[in-house]
Amino acid sequence: MPDDAIRRAVVQLRRLPGIGEKSATRLVYWLLRARKGTAGELAAALAALEDGVAECSVCCNLGSESPCPICASGNREPGVLCVVEEPQDVLVFERGGDFRGRYHVLHGAISPLDGISPDTLRIRPLLERLRDGVIREVILATNPTLEGDATALYLARLLGPIGVRVTRLAHGLSVGTEIEYADAASLSRALANRREV
Amino acid sequence: MPDDAIRRAVVQLRRLPGIGEKSATRLVYWLLRARKGTAGELAAALAALEDGVAECSVCCNLGSESPCPICASGNREPGVLCVVEEPQDVLVFERGGDFRGRYHVLHGAISPLDGISPDTLRIRPLLERLRDGVIREVILATNPTLEGDATALYLARLLGPIGVRVTRLAHGLSVGTEIEYADAASLSRALANRREV
Repeated sequence: MPDDAIRRAVVQLRRLPGIGEKSATRLVYWLLRARKGTAGELAAALAALEDGVAECSVCCNLGSESPCPICASGNREPGVLCVVEEPQDVLVFERGGDFRGRYHVLHGAISPLDGISPDTLRIRPLLERLRDGVIREVILATNPTLEGDATALYLARLLGPIGVRVTRLAHGLSVGTEIEYADAASLSRALANRREV
Repeated sequence: MPDDAIRRAVVQLRRLPGIGEKSATRLVYWLLRARKGTAGELAAALAALEDGVAECSVCCNLGSESPCPICASGNREPGVLCVVEEPQDVLVFERGGDFRGRYHVLHGAISPLDGISPDTLRIRPLLERLRDGVIREVILATNPTLEGDATALYLARLLGPIGVRVTRLAHGLSVGTEIEYADAASLSRALANRREV
């Protein structure tokens, strides 16, 4: 006869992706054994996600400020925009540190079977941003999936007439990958995009 | 430049065992995309662990009531006590449904290297429960590990003079295990504990 509060926490944790009954139970008892305050701090941080996070009015990234720190920053190259599918893609670019422009988050990729059409994505705010002509290049950094490629193609056709430069991330071998272990698709792209040395 | 509220939630989730930076980030963005209220419900359930859970004054199990529903129930065999290491072990017995007695939770097993001595465990409340002579049998259901076995041995010696019957769970092949795949330790125990048919 599992206890109410414990049972309720297990049921809630089990709703998270990749966490089953056993993991949820283990986490709850870990929290109960942890230093006093641990569960409360976690709870407060998760509760803050509910009300403290909204979309940036400019780039549509999720954050607690709008405009977000990247859109508000004066240290960003104003002429380059990197279009990504999801907010977490921005984190990956920022971790890399090479990109100095700004972002635009689509919140998905075109996928008719999942009911995601161009209207569902944040494409209208993207067109708004291009209107004043400050942005000269749009890098389409959607994923190399069927949906990501379709979205990139759709955007390329849409943005072409505007006169902005539209580019796509290069695909090829991952740095450090030995040819023996490369997947066929990456090797094929690496060959097609080979460069003079 | 990850956002404050998002960053804070990732940091908090990453403290849980078995959840790294990537899983934590994935969970946070899943919560942000989930139905409004999902993060709040999870937060509330976790916050309730902080103040809504305490040890049962009788069996030392964790729960929101003391005495716990099992200790308070009139439908339990009063003469049999099952001694386990952790609260989650009680859940496993209850799921099985075969055991109709009550429990006693030690909150660990003797492990001098980890600083867990008999004094750290809930052994004193166990002796209290045996004082009135109602309990006739104590089943030592500690884990079949070095620490669990040492704890069982310690308790067996301590309880012997009291005149209570002290038993230990049987070890052998798991039900459904083919001999081909049995581990050596279980097979050895299965042989030693073989029975007439």
